[in-house]
Amino acid sequence: MERPIGVFDSGVGGLTVVKQLNKILPDEQLIYFGDTARIPYGTKSKRLIQQFALEDALFLLQFNIKFLVVACNTASSSALEILKERLHIPVVGVVEPGAQAAVERTRNKKIGVIGTSATIGSSSYTKSILKLMPDAQVLGRPCPLLVPLVEEGWLDGEVTRLTLKKYLAPLMEQKVDTIILGCTHYPLLEPTIQDILGPDVSLIDSGKETARVVKETLMSLKLVNSGGKPGADLYFVSDSARQFAEVGSRFLGRPLENVQRIDFDEFLIKNSDAPLLKNFEVLYDE
Amino acid sequence: MERPIGVFDSGVGGLTVVKQLNKILPDEQLIYFGDTARIPYGTKSKRLIQQFALEDALFLLQFNIKFLVVACNTASSSALEILKERLHIPVVGVVEPGAQAAVERTRNKKIGVIGTSATIGSSSYTKSILKLMPDAQVLGRPCPLLVPLVEEGWLDGEVTRLTLKKYLAPLMEQKVDTIILGCTHYPLLEPTIQDILGPDVSLIDSGKETARVVKETLMSLKLVNSGGKPGADLYFVSDSARQFAEVGSRFLGRPLENVQRIDFDEFLIKNSDAPLLKNFEVLYDE
Repeated sequence: MERPIGVFDSGVGGLTVVKQLNKILPDEQLIYFGDTARIPYGTKSKRLIQQFALEDALFLLQFNIKFLVVACNTASSSALEILKERLHIPVVGVVEPGAQAAVERTRNKKIGVIGTSATIGSSSYTKSILKLMPDAQVLGRPCPLLVPLVEEGWLDGEVTRLTLKKYLAPLMEQKVDTIILGCTHYPLLEPTIQDILGPDVSLIDSGKETARVVKETLMSLKLVNSGGKPGADLYFVSDSARQFAEVGSRFLGRPLENVQRIDFDEFLIKNSDAPLLKNFEVLYDE
Repeated sequence: MERPIGVFDSGVGGLTVVKQLNKILPDEQLIYFGDTARIPYGTKSKRLIQQFALEDALFLLQFNIKFLVVACNTASSSALEILKERLHIPVVGVVEPGAQAAVERTRNKKIGVIGTSATIGSSSYTKSILKLMPDAQVLGRPCPLLVPLVEEGWLDGEVTRLTLKKYLAPLMEQKVDTIILGCTHYPLLEPTIQDILGPDVSLIDSGKETARVVKETLMSLKLVNSGGKPGADLYFVSDSARQFAEVGSRFLGRPLENVQRIDFDEFLIKNSDAPLLKNFEVLYDE
């Protein structure tokens, strides 16, 4: 089935998922949206993240996508249910695949999760893990400085190591044997984190696990594209395309092409009557 | 003149300016808008910052404000000209007052500026300083990690000190004798920064200087309110009011009341025909 797969994230982080998707699903065309005008999502409220996620999905639906990947831990944690309810195509987020992998990997049933404040505050990973392994102990730790550190390019060095040690200390004290990298920025810190934790702690890259689940789901729904790739992947962003291409190539591990900026406010104004965004009565968390 | 003063910022940082305004203009009512749904501005493009600033101003104009304070270094650096061109009320930003104070304070004419990537990239402080002191040497240093550190509440401690030392090293090597805190978050780091630099380097708090300039301008334009304060200050935000009140009280040094969340997307859709936002032909920097 030649229709493309839609992927969205608040910014560049989701490109770590794109990288994995390209690897294991080389014949699928991807349409990516990075909401760089409103990045980050991880410090914002649940209500707002749900609104943003619906708007991002509406943008991608224009391309007749057959499948939606929420390549953002924050949006997967706070908005996956509402997306599944409102969209008529299959939706996969990064939380469940990461939780599944952690449950398969742990030996002592003590699992740590690191992520943004919104992701950890939502307890999404904890809920997913406990569904699969009710006697697991799950320890979440919000790490709001890690995204800015990655975007500054400080992937190693004293500041990053000290920050990581401070964030990871409570997880190490509780002797977790598995830690989920619950943010698509964190795989870039994986070597430093592994070095700090030592070889006995397993790290789970949710993005990598998600790509695997996307492939399985496409196969079971008979949505896999059997011909060659129908067109190049397209990337859309709500702020500067140049800046996204520069930072994004670090995440993708190769130069980024086909990046276009769109005026997202204009898009929303034009689509203010879209049923997808209507009757949005989720209670505001305040 | 009883009409209120409008103040906007991308988030809570502008409250450091509010604190100073309340101190020296106790009879003026302030209407504050913090665009917390789209914070931060400092990592975003010039074109987008200009658009956001016009939208923020449009929101405040509803309250019949007599004066606009751009309490955000990033917006002052990238959008002050367009705001002055398009609004029919006086507009003051934080850059010129900070530059003025630095020029008065320096003895060796070597001035450092720290701020967000957008503020430093715009060279706004350099241009303002050179207008006043053409033979000054100005050294700008973007410090993208400082805002997240302040918001995490890590105002001192090893991580913050190491980060500051790394950022400040090039300024210290060049022997600047004055450094402008070119971001409204940075006054919370002032004691730590002063401790690292030692007593021979003067720190300029742009917010404090701006409040002084606002008072002078109001007086010269005969816009000062001579009666008592006509009403309590009001605070509007585009994301969670609770979260803003919590973090904001740290910036203001007292509990924050009268905070209301507004749906900014809805506001923009309703006002999509506003002339202020039209014919916005600034070239996109890409």
